[in-house]
Amino acid sequence: MKLENLETPALIVDLDVLESNMAAMSRLLEGTGMGLRPHYKSHRCPAIAHRQIAAGAKGMTCAKLAEAKDLALSGIEDILIANQVTDPAKVARLASLAKCCRLSVCVDNGENVRQLQEAAGVQNAMIHCLVEYEVGMNRCGVDTPQAVLALARQIMSCPNLRFDGIQAYAGNLAHEEDEAKRREQSDVVENRLRELKAYLEGHEIPVREISGTSTGTVEMRRKDSVYTEVQAGSYLFMDMAYRAVGAGFSHSLFVLASVISRRPGAVITDAGVKSVSVDQRPPAFQGYEDVPVEMSEEHSAIYGDFPLAVGDKLRMIPSHCCTTVNLHNWLYLVRGDKVVDRVPVVSRGRSL
Amino acid sequence: MKLENLETPALIVDLDVLESNMAAMSRLLEGTGMGLRPHYKSHRCPAIAHRQIAAGAKGMTCAKLAEAKDLALSGIEDILIANQVTDPAKVARLASLAKCCRLSVCVDNGENVRQLQEAAGVQNAMIHCLVEYEVGMNRCGVDTPQAVLALARQIMSCPNLRFDGIQAYAGNLAHEEDEAKRREQSDVVENRLRELKAYLEGHEIPVREISGTSTGTVEMRRKDSVYTEVQAGSYLFMDMAYRAVGAGFSHSLFVLASVISRRPGAVITDAGVKSVSVDQRPPAFQGYEDVPVEMSEEHSAIYGDFPLAVGDKLRMIPSHCCTTVNLHNWLYLVRGDKVVDRVPVVSRGRSL
Repeated sequence: MKLENLETPALIVDLDVLESNMAAMSRLLEGTGMGLRPHYKSHRCPAIAHRQIAAGAKGMTCAKLAEAKDLALSGIEDILIANQVTDPAKVARLASLAKCCRLSVCVDNGENVRQLQEAAGVQNAMIHCLVEYEVGMNRCGVDTPQAVLALARQIMSCPNLRFDGIQAYAGNLAHEEDEAKRREQSDVVENRLRELKAYLEGHEIPVREISGTSTGTVEMRRKDSVYTEVQAGSYLFMDMAYRAVGAGFSHSLFVLASVISRRPGAVITDAGVKSVSVDQRPPAFQGYEDVPVEMSEEHSAIYGDFPLAVGDKLRMIPSHCCTTVNLHNWLYLVRGDKVVDRVPVVSRGRSL
Repeated sequence: MKLENLETPALIVDLDVLESNMAAMSRLLEGTGMGLRPHYKSHRCPAIAHRQIAAGAKGMTCAKLAEAKDLALSGIEDILIANQVTDPAKVARLASLAKCCRLSVCVDNGENVRQLQEAAGVQNAMIHCLVEYEVGMNRCGVDTPQAVLALARQIMSCPNLRFDGIQAYAGNLAHEEDEAKRREQSDVVENRLRELKAYLEGHEIPVREISGTSTGTVEMRRKDSVYTEVQAGSYLFMDMAYRAVGAGFSHSLFVLASVISRRPGAVITDAGVKSVSVDQRPPAFQGYEDVPVEMSEEHSAIYGDFPLAVGDKLRMIPSHCCTTVNLHNWLYLVRGDKVVDRVPVVSRGRSL
């Protein structure tokens, strides 16, 4: 099966580039003491999670309980849900899942800790907990070392919970295009975490893990980083948003599109916002990266007198790899011009 | 099953409102001579297509061959693909499908007409054709009456094709927020189509159908409209984008979300851009329509001291119903506080 035989729109991954991105991440982390716990949200595809584990990842990060279940059912043994799970029905399922694998979850309030202990106690499970610390996203998490300490103590008093450390994801810095500012604010986060760790240890709370960082900031972590693990996801694929911040990885993910209509000065393809996401910025066509793309639901258009005819195929570089993969049922793995496998996006839409 | 038992994020449709929107559309079209051919792209759900047919729709519109196949396999008998199908493998399948139902497709170039005839001839099928006329989208379609005439004549010379008329979708006007401008430009389109029709009829080309218009412009079509059928889709559900143009329908579609974290001045829910699309504008929470929503992949946040606690549920009004439905596997149909059915979004991701 050749790439040219694929019907479009089709989501393709260049395996050679994917592998070189994985090797580049391993080199970045070598000697830093930081482990890699890649984020499942970027591919939602157990077949790729297994490649990451085989390449040395210590486990997987995910955002939702439904993703964690898919990972566990696929044989992944160490899973972090980098999010709060508060619905009582979900908490009960989380406790069940914690009997199947090493499962960690984030918490930011005491009532949730109480719920987790109750559910884990009933099922005789052990749930690992990270307290989420708010470091800039203005999203979940607690704001002060005192609040972290109170939650850590509460967790440590629960027989079926284990306090492992801190979740600290500064996703707001991941796409900061001013590198100096990204580095400076990244250092501010490091310092806040260092102070937090010292504060907790001063109160005899051991902090085994500090989990976070991203594709956009991993290069800024030094050997003395306080982080113990990196939750990057997009490094596998890259996208136009990470290209804008100069992240040191190459594009391996594309939406293959076909020209379906041609007028003087206009080229129309069959891939629209139902095939490539636009939540971060517009996508771009490879070879035409500087040409603005006009998107509608099932079409994209570039305007200019390009040497393209109906039937020609183009590779679209997604603006945001994670939300683009979530639009597709299948990922075609290619080497050169050959399709070598098709793997299901098992956790597509699994946001429960 | 009560609505409060649903785990979130969940896509819900209020059936009472859906039915009143369907009735409102019927009233709008009554006596105009225009038929309703609703666009499948808004729900991708055969169970809802059947409700539309039962309420008097003459057939369905869709954007892709894969959607048309799902509709035909669900027993819908009159289907328009309001788009170009140019891939040879797809053209062959289109001809097969044309043996299963009354199937129409749009064309905008002569080579495509030749392909369609060849495939239909091999399979002894009849394919209905609309010539797409460019009326403002700057997308597919031909620009001049002369080009339409040439294609109509070519279609009429093909034994396995039938020229039915014109596809003219001015989607660019659908969301024009200045009502006077929308009305004025809508009239410009009507006039261009009237001239086109007269031109074609002057050359002895019968124009049985002129298909197009949208939820945002259907109210502007007068009894003497040149359009014969309306391809509106969003009227079923409404969304924040159509609310901004004052479309005369009510919100029936919501993403049910739960508060998962609460800090002073911040409410965080579990529905992000993987559950509600942002290609047109941000969504809004019902009851908090004027409060800006900050979206990330699996979270949304509103900032302010609202009387909301962890576990509380909110209804999010999508900004764009069509792309939001495409993020979900299931649509929960509710009446009041009861879940009365769950129907699959069968054609989710079917953009081939």
